Amino acid sequence: MLMALQDAPDIGASAPAPQAVAAGYAAIRAQTLGLIEGLAAEDCQAQSMPEASPAKWHLAHTTWFFETFVLALDPEYRPSHRAYTELFNSYYHSVGALHPRGQRGLLTRPTLDEVRAWRAVVDDGMLKVLEGDLSPEQRARVELGLHHEQQHQELLLADLKHLFWHNPLRPAYRDGALPPQPTAQPWRWLERPGVMVEIGHGAEGFAFDNETPRHRAWVDAHVIASRPVNNGEYLDFIVDGGYRNPLLWLADGWDAVQAGDWQRPLYWDPDCDTHFTLRGERTLEHDEPVCHLSYYEADAFARWAGARLPREEEWEAAAQSWPVAGNLLDSGLLQPRSHDTDGPSFYGDVWQWCASSYAPYPGYQATAGALGEYNAKFMCNQMVLRGGSCVTPAGHLRASYRNFFAPHARWQFSGARLAKDRV
Amino acid sequence: MLMALQDAPDIGASAPAPQAVAAGYAAIRAQTLGLIEGLAAEDCQAQSMPEASPAKWHLAHTTWFFETFVLALDPEYRPSHRAYTELFNSYYHSVGALHPRGQRGLLTRPTLDEVRAWRAVVDDGMLKVLEGDLSPEQRARVELGLHHEQQHQELLLADLKHLFWHNPLRPAYRDGALPPQPTAQPWRWLERPGVMVEIGHGAEGFAFDNETPRHRAWVDAHVIASRPVNNGEYLDFIVDGGYRNPLLWLADGWDAVQAGDWQRPLYWDPDCDTHFTLRGERTLEHDEPVCHLSYYEADAFARWAGARLPREEEWEAAAQSWPVAGNLLDSGLLQPRSHDTDGPSFYGDVWQWCASSYAPYPGYQATAGALGEYNAKFMCNQMVLRGGSCVTPAGHLRASYRNFFAPHARWQFSGARLAKDRV
Amino acid sequence: MLMALQDAPDIGASAPAPQAVAAGYAAIRAQTLGLIEGLAAEDCQAQSMPEASPAKWHLAHTTWFFETFVLALDPEYRPSHRAYTELFNSYYHSVGALHPRGQRGLLTRPTLDEVRAWRAVVDDGMLKVLEGDLSPEQRARVELGLHHEQQHQELLLADLKHLFWHNPLRPAYRDGALPPQPTAQPWRWLERPGVMVEIGHGAEGFAFDNETPRHRAWVDAHVIASRPVNNGEYLDFIVDGGYRNPLLWLADGWDAVQAGDWQRPLYWDPDCDTHFTLRGERTLEHDEPVCHLSYYEADAFARWAGARLPREEEWEAAAQSWPVAGNLLDSGLLQPRSHDTDGPSFYGDVWQWCASSYAPYPGYQATAGALGEYNAKFMCNQMVLRGGSCVTPAGHLRASYRNFFAPHARWQFSGARLAKDRV
Amino acid sequence: MLMALQDAPDIGASAPAPQAVAAGYAAIRAQTLGLIEGLAAEDCQAQSMPEASPAKWHLAHTTWFFETFVLALDPEYRPSHRAYTELFNSYYHSVGALHPRGQRGLLTRPTLDEVRAWRAVVDDGMLKVLEGDLSPEQRARVELGLHHEQQHQELLLADLKHLFWHNPLRPAYRDGALPPQPTAQPWRWLERPGVMVEIGHGAEGFAFDNETPRHRAWVDAHVIASRPVNNGEYLDFIVDGGYRNPLLWLADGWDAVQAGDWQRPLYWDPDCDTHFTLRGERTLEHDEPVCHLSYYEADAFARWAGARLPREEEWEAAAQSWPVAGNLLDSGLLQPRSHDTDGPSFYGDVWQWCASSYAPYPGYQATAGALGEYNAKFMCNQMVLRGGSCVTPAGHLRASYRNFFAPHARWQFSGARLAKDRV
Repeated sequence: MLMALQDAPDIGASAPAPQAVAAGYAAIRAQTLGLIEGLAAEDCQAQSMPEASPAKWHLAHTTWFFETFVLALDPEYRPSHRAYTELFNSYYHSVGALHPRGQRGLLTRPTLDEVRAWRAVVDDGMLKVLEGDLSPEQRARVELGLHHEQQHQELLLADLKHLFWHNPLRPAYRDGALPPQPTAQPWRWLERPGVMVEIGHGAEGFAFDNETPRHRAWVDAHVIASRPVNNGEYLDFIVDGGYRNPLLWLADGWDAVQAGDWQRPLYWDPDCDTHFTLRGERTLEHDEPVCHLSYYEADAFARWAGARLPREEEWEAAAQSWPVAGNLLDSGLLQPRSHDTDGPSFYGDVWQWCASSYAPYPGYQATAGALGEYNAKFMCNQMVLRGGSCVTPAGHLRASYRNFFAPHARWQFSGARLAKDRV
Repeated sequence: MLMALQDAPDIGASAPAPQAVAAGYAAIRAQTLGLIEGLAAEDCQAQSMPEASPAKWHLAHTTWFFETFVLALDPEYRPSHRAYTELFNSYYHSVGALHPRGQRGLLTRPTLDEVRAWRAVVDDGMLKVLEGDLSPEQRARVELGLHHEQQHQELLLADLKHLFWHNPLRPAYRDGALPPQPTAQPWRWLERPGVMVEIGHGAEGFAFDNETPRHRAWVDAHVIASRPVNNGEYLDFIVDGGYRNPLLWLADGWDAVQAGDWQRPLYWDPDCDTHFTLRGERTLEHDEPVCHLSYYEADAFARWAGARLPREEEWEAAAQSWPVAGNLLDSGLLQPRSHDTDGPSFYGDVWQWCASSYAPYPGYQATAGALGEYNAKFMCNQMVLRGGSCVTPAGHLRASYRNFFAPHARWQFSGARLAKDRV
Repeated sequence: MLMALQDAPDIGASAPAPQAVAAGYAAIRAQTLGLIEGLAAEDCQAQSMPEASPAKWHLAHTTWFFETFVLALDPEYRPSHRAYTELFNSYYHSVGALHPRGQRGLLTRPTLDEVRAWRAVVDDGMLKVLEGDLSPEQRARVELGLHHEQQHQELLLADLKHLFWHNPLRPAYRDGALPPQPTAQPWRWLERPGVMVEIGHGAEGFAFDNETPRHRAWVDAHVIASRPVNNGEYLDFIVDGGYRNPLLWLADGWDAVQAGDWQRPLYWDPDCDTHFTLRGERTLEHDEPVCHLSYYEADAFARWAGARLPREEEWEAAAQSWPVAGNLLDSGLLQPRSHDTDGPSFYGDVWQWCASSYAPYPGYQATAGALGEYNAKFMCNQMVLRGGSCVTPAGHLRASYRNFFAPHARWQFSGARLAKDRV
Repeated sequence: MLMALQDAPDIGASAPAPQAVAAGYAAIRAQTLGLIEGLAAEDCQAQSMPEASPAKWHLAHTTWFFETFVLALDPEYRPSHRAYTELFNSYYHSVGALHPRGQRGLLTRPTLDEVRAWRAVVDDGMLKVLEGDLSPEQRARVELGLHHEQQHQELLLADLKHLFWHNPLRPAYRDGALPPQPTAQPWRWLERPGVMVEIGHGAEGFAFDNETPRHRAWVDAHVIASRPVNNGEYLDFIVDGGYRNPLLWLADGWDAVQAGDWQRPLYWDPDCDTHFTLRGERTLEHDEPVCHLSYYEADAFARWAGARLPREEEWEAAAQSWPVAGNLLDSGLLQPRSHDTDGPSFYGDVWQWCASSYAPYPGYQATAGALGEYNAKFMCNQMVLRGGSCVTPAGHLRASYRNFFAPHARWQFSGARLAKDRV
């Protein structure tokens, strides 16, 4: 059902042929459209909360990105819809005014059909550009735009799940049974010595500026779990009164529990028997990685388990020797699953909250110009997540990839992996 | 463009032939669908604030009304979509659970097409019922349902205007120029003696329970203006600093001015040159009745003008001798206009805020059963409006008709008529 | 403990001797100070919510009133503390800027001692004025100031009760046992014919502008209860599920029940065995009039009882033939009580919510100038209460007296009397 | 005016004589009382916001700490006021229920005098304990209690400043002129090589658990400013439009600027000529370190200046070779000042925001038991500050001392020191 993204040429690699770049562009753009197949115009319109966006807005904003940052590099370029520059600007003050984030769901015009038509116009313009000789600046921006588009593919699905969950009819985004999953084995503790590590992006290929520079960090001896926590393990925490014991929680976490009357992960039914998924309401399988946790919940679970969450340098140092593979968007499963593997699993299924606030690396320089707003200004009040999820496009991940959300956020496909100091 | 509602037989009259009732039903139901002609599915989905509803919801809720209160009188009746009973229940606790009002815009399913299909199913059922012998209870509920549907026709348009205004593209609901309007003449003060009046519904024909019983009320001598206040007159108030002088305002009104940074009526541009209408952004015509005032603004204007707003018994006593005619929805103008008439104009153009809180009349008895929730429970914290507007369906109004909204509400087609004590 | 206010000469009567006026002034001002006897400076400082004020602020504001509206009539007058003009202005925009209402509890300076010293300075100035020939304007303002002071005596006690209730130590404002109260008899329904009545203030003596003019009103036949509802009767409503049945409530009332998790009157303990009073936590006596109801609760109780609340014209017409006497502040009881009387009791114990929104009477003219802000601007979103309470100063009440609060307000000494249409 | 804290024996040192410990206890407890000399009971009662506490509450809570964590170690101990256990528990869920934080200002009872009397009772009990042989546990808790008391000395002053600032009378906490301050010299950039550093508490003497364990951290080459930013330098940022340029701000910082209409540091008047201090309204001296910045403002200033804020490991590594001395509470100045020194100044005047979120150090173990709630649960959503301020008691600071507040907090004595990557 979903396109195989691995077929898309790595346009981030150095100097691929123009046809390859254009094909990669076309493939990723088509993948986005593939995500809304079967949805009604209404489904693409609604916005369930200010932090989430309508699917239509995702389609438009990713198009805005290419128009604003690639096509408009040409001073002769005239946008086909001048007003869209403001309507679909997410947060780039350098570019101009912003439509209020919480009112994206009120933009019934342009309609979904009009947005699709606009996508086609911009894609035509882009393909013309891609057929020519790209300057390094152009190339870098096209790459960034495609990785940006992939981020929005994941966001589109997380936002849609959140929207559908608000509907008592509980619509399924996709139908069909899932293959059986293997019985989960207890996690193994991977031994990690105290050592100076190098983390951050240093290799060839694309990375966001927040992954740079590659730098040294001292890491003390510790152990890290071979796999994420699963539903059954998390259920033990619930049954043991985890949500009722303030001593397990960060102060802000306990406030969130009280204010939101949290008693279980987002999307779980009160009986903890079923949960809402992109495939509709489903039985809660205990072997599946637990998903839709806030940082606060992941942290409280870890404390209850006598462990802690890993720091991002610990995670990256452990993960960087493993291939970037796992249950990602291209599996088409759309749901985290257990695995029958020899080695540890670091990638896919669920993003793993790290005990690291999202901060600039030593020596970090934000990209110059408007694209400097892409990452740098969010480096406060957010926690880092690592590893990708079952709705992260393949080809989008790296060991150095840093995702980040506010510690109370639960609507992303976020779970937990444990670590422990070595004493 | 809009169907002529006057062609619809008065099904409220005593014992019309079944065909006439069925034709009336069909006409009013078709009129509702006519209102969304030309709209996109997206336009019918979005909800601009908790007090407003999506057009799709209006289509569904009015259908729910007939299903719940007419079809389900038959104990054999089985609704085609059981879940809709909760989804489209507005506020009837007697009927069951309510979907949260502020989340109507998140119900992307059923889609507009599915709601239209459901309307057709219910209409089929209704027409079958209407072809038979109606019990008095059935007849009363069909009548109520049709007047209810007409109320939602007006609400649908007011809500849509509010939604479209949030879009910087400022879409026009309907295109086309308006005919020129006559130059407004100064209003005349109609002399009204101190006298015992009778108000409330007492005649034949339909009325809501809140219009009953017809009862006596003593009214002191006063004068009442022959027409509503117009834009030019209201502009004088603005230019004179009306929005900056707390002494002109009710205390809660002044709080609303401060909290909302009110400086002019809703939908006016900051320069007071243009305003947003159902026909898009238009030049502000000074002779047109001023519209989209809150009660607080109408009251402050009256104080500034050395007058006051009329009480509802004053309004009704003055209006009841005039024919119920004016610029209503069937004119197709969709905008208040000035008139070139001999007599005073009480009906149409803009609802007129009265200096009367919405309260039960002496001897009032709410309808028995669930339909008792229709009106009675709102009799607090609301002010009465009288006279209908340019989006009120013809055939829906009466001299005794009581509309009501919270004093801060501005998104209805609400204006002001002045009165004065006779000293 | 409390001064006998009836000893204060009626300074509102026409042209009393100057000594009598001065004595009345001194008596009422002293009564205010008597109310804070035994309180700590801290008790007089704190503000429990924006709608309530610190006792110290009441002392200062009433002083501000005399300085601003009487002493400052003399153009030579120089206030001893210029800044107090803003600090202690409650809501008179005509006078100048206002200190934010919700921040009154942050004004630790002037201290209580400083405010008392200022009171003494202003009292000296006032007594000098009162010894001279008062102009009619001066006389009217002194009278108004004294009635204003009496209003704040009641507010001071209601606000203090609200404050003390927030303290888990539950301090008693005054100690000492109450005399036993008689067993409550069932209320009698007083028959009231349909008739034209006259209400409003028309006699000699003082009244607030909102009680004028005396005017005619048509009242339909009804019955009105001889006494207010008591705790035992209200308990029946609670036990019968009154707080859980939305059909008994106004829509806004039901919202208040949900939002505030209301399950019983304010100050009652969860078991409905005891309640917090100005004499500390006490056993809930079933024969005592129920107190600290919102309008919503009074209205819901009435609906449950198959009755309604009286309109203010019904209340006044019924009450005006009875002497203004009852359990008022001068009884020193500080708590509503049952009575062993022949006739009906209209005054004292608890204010009685009326089914009338607070609105200007026909022909009402607000006082000219700044004092026009005293009452007129609150004539929206408030309901009328009649009859005075156990903390209303004697000498302050009249049959025509109109108190008013928002329908959700519960911290006043407010209860319920029933009425019924005569069918 | 303020006691010289350096006269207090270092009770944290190993095994001082009992008399010395008792004297230290007495000295620090007396210092707290010295802080409220000259204040009215009212000044000690009011609470200006939920994050700030009344002075009286600080007096009570610090007493609660000794009673709960030292005296109650004795199973025979009976608290003199049982209810205070809940009233003055700040956030220790292990100990029991908590009085709501935002309602501390409503606790008018116990009065200030009663709280002082309770302090005396607890001090008597404590001195008896201190005269005996202290167990290691007792000794550790006494030490912690005294450092806790010193923290509250600083908080008391910051909270009081915030309270007094809300009063238009702008009361001065202390009178008297300040000595002239030297002309500020441009800051020097101190060169710091890339090196493995050791930070955290490892030496003898007291430290909070959040300063442990001492551990290695790799630090890249950078420069750090020799002194904090001053008012004149910050004014350049304001004049250059710093508060109007979103590109200088973190996203959450820009939201805070908009929501709070920030245009200058807290306590500055709109003309940036004067500011409110503990000595009342004073001329803004440009050479004085800028104070009352949020993290967002410190960060935006740094970005504007082409620099960044130091990480806490950079700060500590640079500061740990300098004596812990500067303008602290014992100077009695109560205001940050410029200095005429050879070396850099790291301590005193203003806390310096670090570009480090408050997180557990590698290997961190929270104290066992209830005292584990002291620090650990706040390790999220807070930024670290270093260096102490002009209201930090001498003897309370260390190079390893970690203060922490939310990034929007401005009411602490918080400023900025710059750093830069070495390229």
